This record gives sequence, C-alpha cells and structure tokens, in this order.
Amino acid sequence: MGIHTYFRSLNELERIFRCPGKFKFEVHTVAAHSWKVVQYAKTLADIEEKHGGVVIDWKKLYEITSSHDYGEIFIGDIKTPVKHSSPELRVLIQQVEEGMVNHFIEEHIPEEFKGIFHNQLREGKDDSIEGLILEVADKMDQVYEAFSELQKGNSEREFVVMYRNALVKIKNINLKCVEYFLEQILPDMVNEETISSVDIKRITEEALAL
Amino acid sequence: MGIHTYFRSLNELERIFRCPGKFKFEVHTVAAHSWKVVQYAKTLADIEEKHGGVVIDWKKLYEITSSHDYGEIFIGDIKTPVKHSSPELRVLIQQVEEGMVNHFIEEHIPEEFKGIFHNQLREGKDDSIEGLILEVADKMDQVYEAFSELQKGNSEREFVVMYRNALVKIKNINLKCVEYFLEQILPDMVNEETISSVDIKRITEEALAL
Amino acid sequence: MGIHTYFRSLNELERIFRCPGKFKFEVHTVAAHSWKVVQYAKTLADIEEKHGGVVIDWKKLYEITSSHDYGEIFIGDIKTPVKHSSPELRVLIQQVEEGMVNHFIEEHIPEEFKGIFHNQLREGKDDSIEGLILEVADKMDQVYEAFSELQKGNSEREFVVMYRNALVKIKNINLKCVEYFLEQILPDMVNEETISSVDIKRITEEALAL
Amino acid sequence: MGIHTYFRSLNELERIFRCPGKFKFEVHTVAAHSWKVVQYAKTLADIEEKHGGVVIDWKKLYEITSSHDYGEIFIGDIKTPVKHSSPELRVLIQQVEEGMVNHFIEEHIPEEFKGIFHNQLREGKDDSIEGLILEVADKMDQVYEAFSELQKGNSEREFVVMYRNALVKIKNINLKCVEYFLEQILPDMVNEETISSVDIKRITEEALAL
Amino acid sequence: MGIHTYFRSLNELERIFRCPGKFKFEVHTVAAHSWKVVQYAKTLADIEEKHGGVVIDWKKLYEITSSHDYGEIFIGDIKTPVKHSSPELRVLIQQVEEGMVNHFIEEHIPEEFKGIFHNQLREGKDDSIEGLILEVADKMDQVYEAFSELQKGNSEREFVVMYRNALVKIKNINLKCVEYFLEQILPDMVNEETISSVDIKRITEEALAL
Amino acid sequence: MGIHTYFRSLNELERIFRCPGKFKFEVHTVAAHSWKVVQYAKTLADIEEKHGGVVIDWKKLYEITSSHDYGEIFIGDIKTPVKHSSPELRVLIQQVEEGMVNHFIEEHIPEEFKGIFHNQLREGKDDSIEGLILEVADKMDQVYEAFSELQKGNSEREFVVMYRNALVKIKNINLKCVEYFLEQILPDMVNEETISSVDIKRITEEALAL
Repeated sequence: MGIHTYFRSLNELERIFRCPGKFKFEVHTVAAHSWKVVQYAKTLADIEEKHGGVVIDWKKLYEITSSHDYGEIFIGDIKTPVKHSSPELRVLIQQVEEGMVNHFIEEHIPEEFKGIFHNQLREGKDDSIEGLILEVADKMDQVYEAFSELQKGNSEREFVVMYRNALVKIKNINLKCVEYFLEQILPDMVNEETISSVDIKRITEEALAL
Repeated sequence: MGIHTYFRSLNELERIFRCPGKFKFEVHTVAAHSWKVVQYAKTLADIEEKHGGVVIDWKKLYEITSSHDYGEIFIGDIKTPVKHSSPELRVLIQQVEEGMVNHFIEEHIPEEFKGIFHNQLREGKDDSIEGLILEVADKMDQVYEAFSELQKGNSEREFVVMYRNALVKIKNINLKCVEYFLEQILPDMVNEETISSVDIKRITEEALAL
Repeated sequence: MGIHTYFRSLNELERIFRCPGKFKFEVHTVAAHSWKVVQYAKTLADIEEKHGGVVIDWKKLYEITSSHDYGEIFIGDIKTPVKHSSPELRVLIQQVEEGMVNHFIEEHIPEEFKGIFHNQLREGKDDSIEGLILEVADKMDQVYEAFSELQKGNSEREFVVMYRNALVKIKNINLKCVEYFLEQILPDMVNEETISSVDIKRITEEALAL
Repeated sequence: MGIHTYFRSLNELERIFRCPGKFKFEVHTVAAHSWKVVQYAKTLADIEEKHGGVVIDWKKLYEITSSHDYGEIFIGDIKTPVKHSSPELRVLIQQVEEGMVNHFIEEHIPEEFKGIFHNQLREGKDDSIEGLILEVADKMDQVYEAFSELQKGNSEREFVVMYRNALVKIKNINLKCVEYFLEQILPDMVNEETISSVDIKRITEEALAL
Repeated sequence: MGIHTYFRSLNELERIFRCPGKFKFEVHTVAAHSWKVVQYAKTLADIEEKHGGVVIDWKKLYEITSSHDYGEIFIGDIKTPVKHSSPELRVLIQQVEEGMVNHFIEEHIPEEFKGIFHNQLREGKDDSIEGLILEVADKMDQVYEAFSELQKGNSEREFVVMYRNALVKIKNINLKCVEYFLEQILPDMVNEETISSVDIKRITEEALAL
Repeated sequence: MGIHTYFRSLNELERIFRCPGKFKFEVHTVAAHSWKVVQYAKTLADIEEKHGGVVIDWKKLYEITSSHDYGEIFIGDIKTPVKHSSPELRVLIQQVEEGMVNHFIEEHIPEEFKGIFHNQLREGKDDSIEGLILEVADKMDQVYEAFSELQKGNSEREFVVMYRNALVKIKNINLKCVEYFLEQILPDMVNEETISSVDIKRITEEALAL
C-alpha cells in the first residue's frame, strides 16, 4: 500500500531465528544480527580508512549492511548446505529472492522512491570495498555467535564448522581491517576463553577473608 | 555413526518453528506438528475404513505420516511461495532434499537397515489412499493452526490465506473422511468461534448471585 | 461436541512440559516426546522383525505409541515418586485417568467411533511385543533427554537418576531390539560424550593456517 | 544436607507453571503466584483488623501464605478435577504430599529446627482467620489471573470456570475483607474491562490536533 | 582489552527488553529496535533529500542512529517518567551515562581510535537534520510498537500514551519527511486497523464454494 | 481507582527481569525474587530468635520483605553501578522512587488505608533486626542466583562480582543468622559445586551391570 508496508515488514526479521534446528544457549534474530553487522561494519570501515588510506562511501555501506538480509522475509531460512549443493540451485534461489524483492518494490513502493529502494535492497556483497567490508562484518557475526556458544559448552559440531569456515572466509579477504581483526581483535577473543573458568571455592574463601 | 545419529537428529525438529516471520500467539514446532498429523491421520483412516469400505495399509500410513517432514532437518524452512515460484525450482529443491536424505542414509544407517530407511523416509504424498490421507492430515493441521490464531484476534493476512488454501486443498480430495471432516468436524470448529466471546460482567453477576 | 473436540484437544499436549520443576537447558513438550516415541518405536519394530523373526501388528503399535500420553490432558503431570509412593495410590490414579478418558469418549465421540477410540486411547503398555516396544521407546526418550542435559553440563541429580533408571528398565526387557540398542546404539551415544569437548585455540590456529 | 537443600529447592517453584495445558497469553509461575498471595493476604489482613476488630497472628499468616504451595515441589501439578474426582483419592494425595514434606524435613532439616519447619510447611487452610484469609488470597489470584486472560480475548472455557468458581468460593467466606473485596475492589476490576477497548483512529486524530 | 570488548558488548542489547513491566504480546529487544531505527532513518533521509532539497551527512546519520541506545548497556532501562521527574535528575542521569561511555572508551579503545569512538557514541539527538531524523525514527518505532500492541487487543494504557506522545513529538518536528509520514504513511497504518477483523464463517463458506 | 489498582500492579513485577543485559542460563523475575527473599527471611528470623535470644516483629518483617522491590514498578531497573556512581545521584534516585510510591498511594489508596500503605511500602532496610535480616535475605538471593549461574558454566564476570560482593555484604552484618549461614549453609553450597561433575560412562556401565 506504500512505504508503510515496507516499514511494517521490518518487524518480521525480529521473528526469524538464525541457525534453526541446532541447540543454542542463546537465540539470535535476523534483526539483531543485522544491527550487529551494521555496528561491526562501521568500525571496520573506520579502521580501513585509517590504515588503508581509502575513502569509504558511507551511504552505500549504510544501505547494504542494514538491508543485507531483508530478502529473508520472502525466502525464509534456507540452510547453507542446500544453497551450496549445486551451482544451478544457488543461482535459481538467488533469482527467486531478487524477483520477490523486485516484485515487492513494484507493488508497494511509490514511483518516486522505486529507484532508491531498488538500490537499497540490492545484493550488496560485490567486490567494492563496501561490499567486502559487509562480507567481513557478516562473517564476523558468525565468529562471535559460534564462539559464544562454544564458550558456554555447546557441543554441536555445527558451531565448530561455522566458526572455522567464517574465519577462513575472513582471512582470505584482502583488507587492512581484516589484518587488524586477525592481529588485534581475534587474539583477545581466544584469550578470553582460556581465562573463563571460575573457581567458586577460591572466590568464596577470598570474599570471606576480606 | 549408526542409528544413534538418526535418533539424535529427531531432536532438531523440536527446534524448527512453523510459519517463521509471522506474528503468532502460539508457536508450533515441526515435531509437535508431526505428532498431530500422526493423530489426525489415524482417525481419518479409521473413518475411511468404516465409511469407504477400504483396507488401510497401517504400516505405510504410520511410516509416511510420522516422517513426512523429516527432510526439513536438512533443507530448513523454505517459504511456500518460494517453492511455488517456478516449477523448475520446485523440482530442484525436491531433488536436493531427496539427495540429502539419501546421503544421510548411506552415511549413517547400517547396511541391513538401509532399505527400510529409504522406504520410511521417502516422499509419502502419492496417490494411494495412505498418501491422500497424509495430505488431508497435513492440511488439517494448517486449518487448526490458522483457526486458532484467527480466533485469538491475529490479523496477519497469512493466516487467512493459509486457512482458506488448506480448506480448498482438502475439499478437492476424493475421500470419505474428507466428507466426514467437512460435514461433521468443520462446522463444530466454525461454530465454536461464534460462541467464544465472553461477557465478564454477566459472569460476575451470576457468580455473586449463586 | 464430536471429533472436533478430540482434534482440538491435541494442542494441549504442546503446552505440557516434561520434568517440571527441574532446571533444563532444553524444554520438551509432551507432544514432541510423543512424536519421538512414535519414531523410535517404528525403527525398534523394524529391528525386532528383522532380528527376532516376529510379525508386528503395525496398527496396534501406531495406536498405542502415538496416544500413550494422551491421558495427561486430564491428569496433568503427577511426579513419578508420587505415583510410586503407594500401590494403593497408583491404582487409584490410574483408575481416575481411565475414568476420565472414558468419560471424554462417552461425551464427545459419536456412537459409531466409540469402540475405535476406546481401543486407541487404552493403556498400551501390556506384555505383547507392541506393548513392550512402547515401553522401550518411552524409556529411550528419557535416556536421550537426560543424556542431552548431562552432556550440556546440567548438574541436577534428577537427570542422572532418570538416565540410570531408564537404562535399567530397558535392559530388563527381553527383546532383540533391546540387544541392538545396548550393543549398537548406546555405545555411540556414550562415545559422543567423550569426544565433545572443543579446543577453540587449536581450531583457530588451524583455520588461520589454511 | 541441611537448610541449604531447602533454600535451593525454592528455585523449583520458579519452574512450575500454573494451569498447564491451557493456552495462556501470560504464563505464571508458582513462585510468582506465591508472592502475590503473600501481598494480597497482607492487605486483606489489614482490612480485617480495621473493619473486623480482630487481631491477626502475623507470624502465622506470614508462614502459611508464603509456603502454601511448597508441597508442589514434591507432588507436581495435579489437575483440580483429578483431586476432586473422589474423596478417597483426595485424602490419599494429601497424605502423600504431607508424607513427602515430612520426609524432606526429617532428612534435611537439622534437629533444632525440625519443629519450626513442620510448623511452617503445614497445611495452612484451616478455619482460623489466618487460614481463611489465605483461602481468600489464593482464590483472589485465580480471579486476577482468569480476568487478565479473558480481558485479552482468551476463549478457553477453563478461565471462565476458574473465574466463576473462585468468586463463588470467596463470597462464601465470612470475613470483613471479603465484603470489602466484593464491594470496593471487584467492581473496579469489572469496570476496567468495559473501558478497555481502544479506538486508534480517534486517538490518532486527537494527537494530530494537539 | 581492545575493540573486542566493544564488539562483544553489542550482544548485551539483545538481552535488554523494551517497555519492562508492561504486558506485551510481542517483546522487542533494544538491538532489534536499533536496527529498525537505522532502517526508518535511511528512508526518512531519502525522502528528506528528495522533498527538502537538502544534503544528508550519511556517515553521521549512520553513526548516530545505529549507536543511539548503546548507553543502555551501562545505565539499564530507566523508566521515562523517572527521567522526567525533575530536570536536575535528568541532567545527572545523562552525565552519568556519558561518563560511563567515556570511561569505557578510555579503558578499552586503543589510542588511535579513541576520537572515532567518542564521536560515534556521542548523544546524537541535536538540532542538525541528522539529529532530527534520528528523533523522528526513534519515535516512529514507538508508534509502530504501540500500534501493533493495540491492534492485537492490548489494553494497557501505557501503549495508548506511548502512541499518542510519540505522534505528538513527531508532528512538531519541522521536516519534509515528517509531512510525508503524516500524509502518506500514518493513514495506511490507521486504515489497516479498521480492516483487520476477520469473519471466519464467511471465509469458510467462500473456500468451500470454490 | 482504589486497592484494585494496587493489586493489579503486582503483576508488573512478574515482567521485570533481574540482571538485564547479561547472559543468564536461567531468568529470574522480580516477583520470584521477592518470594524467595520472603522465604529466606522467615527462616533467618527463626534462627535469629533461637540463637540470638531476640524477639522478631513478624508483622514488620512480613511487610518489608515482601514489598522491598515494589518501587521497581515505577523506577525500572537501574543498574547498580549507576546508583553508586555518585552519592548525589543515589540520593536523588531514592527521592524520586519514594516520591512516586507516595504519589501512587495518595492517588489510589482510600483514605482509611493510606497510613498502612505508607508503612508497608516504606524503605525497609534500616538498622533494626528486621531491616538487617531483609538485607541479608536480599543479598542471599544474589548469592544463590550467581552461584547457580557459575555452576552451570556461565563465564560472565558480573556473576563472579555479584557473588563476591553479596558475600562480603552479608558477612559484615552482625547477626546470629549470618554466623549460621556462613558456618552451616554456605559450606554445603560450595561443596555441592565440587561434586557436581557427572561421569556418564561410569553411570552407564553401572546401570548395565545391575
């Protein structure tokens, strides 16, 4: 009916959960994931500007990060192995998703804003710096999600695989912010794991001795 | 590793929710849905035997109803409009699902039980009486789920569409148990809606007058 | 009012949680439990036919497994120790449950289906092969539920007790599928526990070395 | 092991839900219910002292209200109709519950506090003023719980029945605080229902006209 | 320890719920709210550029919208009436929040990025176009949240008040995108309410007549 | 409108969660916390009477324990570090909370009960024995909550800090029941931790050997 239909639809991403089927100590919605990707990307872009001597197109980065999973409203959550089971299927699914997003825009967005929405809701993971930063930020959230589960004692293999694959994807992207992540951020994360065990007996004795 | 891998995997259907993205007063898991389909089908088959003078293959019905959504463990929840967006995609997705189920059986199920599992986990919605009863039972759960949401005041169009489409699907299946459902069961359901509003004031006065 | 009342009532078992009062990392509904019992029983019966040279009455197995906890709709969740506190109380509670199920059938099920429903909703755990398979499948779900909690680090004694008692119950049932479970399935489960700890540091280093 | 076992057990009442099996817009734990009963009783007793010219034994009231559902830790949630299905069963269940509470005290509570705990955890609903106030407060929470569901559009008959039966129970108790409840509190509650519908269109227009 | 501490902290906003204490049919996290504000603001800014002939500082808008509630990690959820109870308290609370954010930056963010973080995490609601758009987007989410509750039948006065106050706040902001919202978007929303009631009987009859 | 407004408001404390923002394996409401404090305090007071030779004012203890967090309905959950960030802010926040409680009483409570409510809802943590017991009971629930999280493997530092600070607070209160807690109850709790690990393999072997 207009932009209202688009605004209201955002609510749906609060009701789609990531990693369906697997046991999780903490559930994440696609909406919350999208917000964290926005936040990571902002800082990654700051690092890239500072260390890489490049100029970020902030409007583009803003658009592609915040909307990068909007298409899940139409498509639902198709498991990654399915998408990758054949190149043919992958292309078809992507075509369907793009077709549905385009159909939504044509049906609901007023003429004067159609161009803007086609732009905003386009697939953002291209080879531009902004597209690459989105890819890093998206994978970084998988690293954080999987790490947090493993740290709590989750023994689902899926989280080990997710953690490892996301790391491999990130490290093969040629950006200064990736270097920074691998050298400055990831070691802090891994180190946190090794100091996380708690000795209640000792804490109790120390508290009583105060 | 063996049948243990299969038994443990059943737990995953307790963590996949039906109708993702839409607001629901009550959430249903695929496991609970599967159980209700098993129960509906049992009674529908009893009606069919009684009114249709046919003999049900109970083993087959048991197998295909209880396992009819097992493939969602591999595929995830692909939204219905996606599946129907092109016949080509639909066939591809079904091939991928079957391929993954077959791969699972080949990898995990011991030789002597492979045949049994290929049989159990096959697509059950064929033109046999048992396949048709499964189709009716599966759609009946959509009718019950959607009705229950609408009755509570859910205004998502999706539930109106789901309710209507499921009813249309059911009524076009040529079984005696469908006749029974339309004539004996559905009217009770619809009638329940009209008597469901509650007058607290009157109830209070009546209680105090006792 | 008719079979609708029965179909609608199934929804209630989605709202009764197993093991109330105890801390659980994952909550299970009676509906999901019932579905898993249906699935275990199907495979156990296949094993029994293959290894035991017997013929299963599949209709009976279907009926008694899928409905085996239906009575909880009327009775609620009475803790096991209560039921076992005196033989007198146990008999009384069982009589009340059967009375309520019978009352429900008499009040809501049409004359022509009363016999079928009395049959379907009867207590199924008798000494027939099907009754014994139901008992094994029901206890197997306790084994899986308790194992899954203990594996995640749950320190409630109740789950140790549940795991042990269910195993003891199973191993004293004289069926070929029990032998198969103890020799082929249980070792895979226990072995999974010992390989489940995750070394994040090593995984990180391996991923970065790829 | 001592009073620690008792203190830790309180946590269990946070995990037992009232009215299992029925659809509820809002779920209540037995712990939260117990707290509300404590709060209602305190005010009811204040009213009784003021209007009835009696002296409340505050220690007794404190003890019996806050612990009145502690026995559910051992017994679980047995549905009311079960308890009332035969006087014989009711007596037996109550004996089992008392036996289990006594067993817990004998096993875990140190000698010097056994008397106190037998007193605290006794059945409190006797004919004393404090026992009657507990009965009123307990039923008042059913009135509030059921009202809140009906007001939100819940069409489960169980809540109508619960609301009505609780009101009838209350009004037959001969206390000044019951008179106050019926004349001063209940009318405000019922009146709230009739003013609760919201006209979004009008509110929007008024806001825009400001 | 570094930027890792900041990235990990984002997770906390997934665990803070909006509007605590009030009954809600649907719960919203601060993370999901933040994402929706990012999305609204993007479109509002597009409208403003198109209709207002202004140039948006997209980097600034990106920063202030996505981080506008980050301070809640330190402060928690202080109810609006508290903040407004005295100008003195309001100033003090804001000073504490800013002090805590600054303390966090000084303690955890590396020297070279401190300036960037002080900028990113600053209070964004100033009188610039970007600051005003943030204010509109933030209030628009209150409108959507409250509308969605009222539409489902929520009778808490708080949502009527929230809806009304947010509308009044929005309409007093002098922006072209506000005009667009009031004239093009809000009427669609209000109109949706009036068409939302569902006649199950009619739908059933129509479906059966197909 | 009267006491109904007060009774209905109690429900709000079932919807405010303790320790917002932090990961918790188990969530506690303020209502459930309040009930546990009531229960702890009752037993602590019994110990104090027995070991300290004092007489408890049970009415006062009842009032101040059960209502000690009622003010959170108005104030919301302000994080502890905020309250402690400056003595000036702490005083102001307390003044606002008291002002709001007083305003509520003046607006809703009938004249004849105003005095009683001002008394009931006053700040209870003074230097009387009852006030000190409330302080111990309130901190004891932090000890139990934090211990339970740490025991399940929660690695949030906040729970270590909460556990330690609460213990330190308790041990500096000069009461006989504190001595009893430190000597008789706390050791049982800490000891429970050290025996909580479970060896599934051994349990399995023992069960099969029975």
